Amino acid sequence: MIQPRTFKGARDFLPEQMLHRERITQVMRQTFKKYGFAPIETPAIEYLDVLTGKYGEDADRLIYRLNYKNGSKDEAALHYDLTVPFSRVVAMNPDLAMPFKRYQIQPVWRADRPQPHQGRFREFYQCDVDCVGSSSMVIDAEMVAITYEVLSQLGFEGFLIKINNRKILNGITQYVGLDASWTLEVCRSIDKLDKVEWSEVRKELTDKNIAEDAIAKLEFLLQKELTLTNLEAELSAVEVAQEGIRELKQVFAYLDILGIPASAYRFDISLARGLDYYTGPIFETKLPAHPHIGSLTGGGRYDTLIGMFTGKDMPSVGTTLGLDRIFTAMQQLNLLEDVKTSTQVLVANFGDDTMQDALSLVKSLRENNVNTEFYPEPAKMKKQFAYCDKKKIPYVCIIGETEKAAQKVSVKNMQTGEQHVVSLEELVFLLKK
Amino acid sequence: MIQPRTFKGARDFLPEQMLHRERITQVMRQTFKKYGFAPIETPAIEYLDVLTGKYGEDADRLIYRLNYKNGSKDEAALHYDLTVPFSRVVAMNPDLAMPFKRYQIQPVWRADRPQPHQGRFREFYQCDVDCVGSSSMVIDAEMVAITYEVLSQLGFEGFLIKINNRKILNGITQYVGLDASWTLEVCRSIDKLDKVEWSEVRKELTDKNIAEDAIAKLEFLLQKELTLTNLEAELSAVEVAQEGIRELKQVFAYLDILGIPASAYRFDISLARGLDYYTGPIFETKLPAHPHIGSLTGGGRYDTLIGMFTGKDMPSVGTTLGLDRIFTAMQQLNLLEDVKTSTQVLVANFGDDTMQDALSLVKSLRENNVNTEFYPEPAKMKKQFAYCDKKKIPYVCIIGETEKAAQKVSVKNMQTGEQHVVSLEELVFLLKK
Repeated sequence: MIQPRTFKGARDFLPEQMLHRERITQVMRQTFKKYGFAPIETPAIEYLDVLTGKYGEDADRLIYRLNYKNGSKDEAALHYDLTVPFSRVVAMNPDLAMPFKRYQIQPVWRADRPQPHQGRFREFYQCDVDCVGSSSMVIDAEMVAITYEVLSQLGFEGFLIKINNRKILNGITQYVGLDASWTLEVCRSIDKLDKVEWSEVRKELTDKNIAEDAIAKLEFLLQKELTLTNLEAELSAVEVAQEGIRELKQVFAYLDILGIPASAYRFDISLARGLDYYTGPIFETKLPAHPHIGSLTGGGRYDTLIGMFTGKDMPSVGTTLGLDRIFTAMQQLNLLEDVKTSTQVLVANFGDDTMQDALSLVKSLRENNVNTEFYPEPAKMKKQFAYCDKKKIPYVCIIGETEKAAQKVSVKNMQTGEQHVVSLEELVFLLKK
Repeated sequence: MIQPRTFKGARDFLPEQMLHRERITQVMRQTFKKYGFAPIETPAIEYLDVLTGKYGEDADRLIYRLNYKNGSKDEAALHYDLTVPFSRVVAMNPDLAMPFKRYQIQPVWRADRPQPHQGRFREFYQCDVDCVGSSSMVIDAEMVAITYEVLSQLGFEGFLIKINNRKILNGITQYVGLDASWTLEVCRSIDKLDKVEWSEVRKELTDKNIAEDAIAKLEFLLQKELTLTNLEAELSAVEVAQEGIRELKQVFAYLDILGIPASAYRFDISLARGLDYYTGPIFETKLPAHPHIGSLTGGGRYDTLIGMFTGKDMPSVGTTLGLDRIFTAMQQLNLLEDVKTSTQVLVANFGDDTMQDALSLVKSLRENNVNTEFYPEPAKMKKQFAYCDKKKIPYVCIIGETEKAAQKVSVKNMQTGEQHVVSLEELVFLLKK
């Protein structure tokens, strides 16, 4: 006998969870389409070299490799995110009409230490929207608008979309006197600021051999909670920072026209995002009142990633909505509706004499698009009611000898206990209400 | 630079394909729910020993293994189908209300030789409906009914659901004088009959050292195209075959009550299904007029699989609808609707003077649930029309200085070339038609 067990860091989703997850992805799909994004899918399996060298060393170590042609150029692995596979698709399809706006909802895999209470798993769903082929900040604003609209529709309140720009971080590296090549190291360290104290980040920067006066200047900027306008003055001599600031000002102006309330987003100089491939505006959504819940969404502009496949850069921006984080947060915040089943009615089964009539009723209900279960074995009424109770099926239909003779159906509301004898037409009307 | 390429036997799906695939799975989900099935999902990654030893040796060799704790008891692999993971879930959740009816739509992986024209890939989607906890043939009939309903709704005609019973095949093994332990070997060979000639199967049986007179008897039965009633007489002395025949007669009676036309299904003594775990009725759907297209669906009863995890057998039956086979068949048979985009309208962008008004229009249209794209960069009219043409977006909205002054919008039908100046209300009414 084999011990049945689930892979560590992965989960089964039973109907109670899946019905919610289906609803959440449905809201996403509708919103993505409303903003003009179209679906694509890519395989879970990619050649390893398609994936590595884009995320950063830490992330590369978390890629799951298959036991397939190991060591050869055709070594295979499971995708780590959906952005790199999307970039590969764009590189392979030069005839796509540009701008190309796509969404993609699929699981990704990371050989990480699972932390289920924070919604961190080894296999989890990412829901991505990306646009390639435009440098317009309208698209960056649409990323924020989509984030706002999906989370609002799902019932979230008080979430905060933090916005920064890698160009500003580049500028800061210059400003504090470091070579531009240090930017990614600095980003990776300050990205940890929402999980650990400054003192720990300071220690990490020291360990990276960054000069003490550079760290001091960095601390000054990060701890000051500067507005974009103050920062503009402070970094007036740093051209790349000025460009980054201009871009964010455009994003904020577009968000205003798109009607996104200013309370939902904020410039945050300490937002860095861990992955290497970002080059412009970056975004991340937190629930400030629930700091133990990780980021619900994250993304940014990555204008050079596709060039890694084609030799020619293409402006690109996108964001990921984390289905598992969002689902975990909705559970913890009681935002999930009380839905346990999609079945609307159970038709009871008392065996041979009436079974044919009961099964005909099942057929008629389904023809009327009523989600109908038939109890497959003849059984006592009590047992069939208990089944409905356990599964929260709202109605039971009964055809006994009396109902059969009268060509009627008894229908019982499982919540109120009320029972009525009705015709098929009345039944369909009642159930479709 | 890295060569962008897709893993052999796996595919990218661009929007034109994905919009169809989303529609197909939507039809399935609705139908599954109508029959009282609820969604579940299981991880792609399973421990290897959860998967092996259930499908048969040939299949076990096709399981993709991860480079993860190889050789240990925690060795991991990608699931080969959804039936074994579902059985594991049932084994791990003894409190599930029985019968438990679930559906599951996810990719599976097989290290097979890809044959794209027949819809055979290494990564492909299975769409499964299964019910555990009932021996009633009503459920087996529902599997056939669901198959019929999904394929009909998708526009298929002339498909044939072949039905047999492993108990009959067991009985035949007895009848031809072989020990019961030979049944699986015989099944695996005769399962190939829809791809190869009898002579080849005969050779394989001879190679398996099956006695010549047993093969001759087998040939007699298989080549005779027996009806169920004729077979009942022929195998009157074989109890297990009689039980299998009684079960199928029940299935056919229920299908009749459920209104499934008799032309859509047929008893087929040579249907065997390759996998080891089947124990009762088995089903498979073919397009007789298009023999090069592989099976669209396949399934059956597997009453002993869950017992491999728990030590206690549980009656179970299910069927798989192959999304990739169905999609490939719909392409080849011209059953796909002419849908290229989900975007209903493009709002043109002519830059600063009218851009704010255009973006406000975008906002209003989306608020009215119109799928709306905004051309992100100011561009000449011609370029924006060409973009719509290429993407088959049906309408373009233009706000120039004239329209802005009149608080109106010009809307152009891209197919007819007609253009009108309308109010926002008129525009929404037109687009929602």
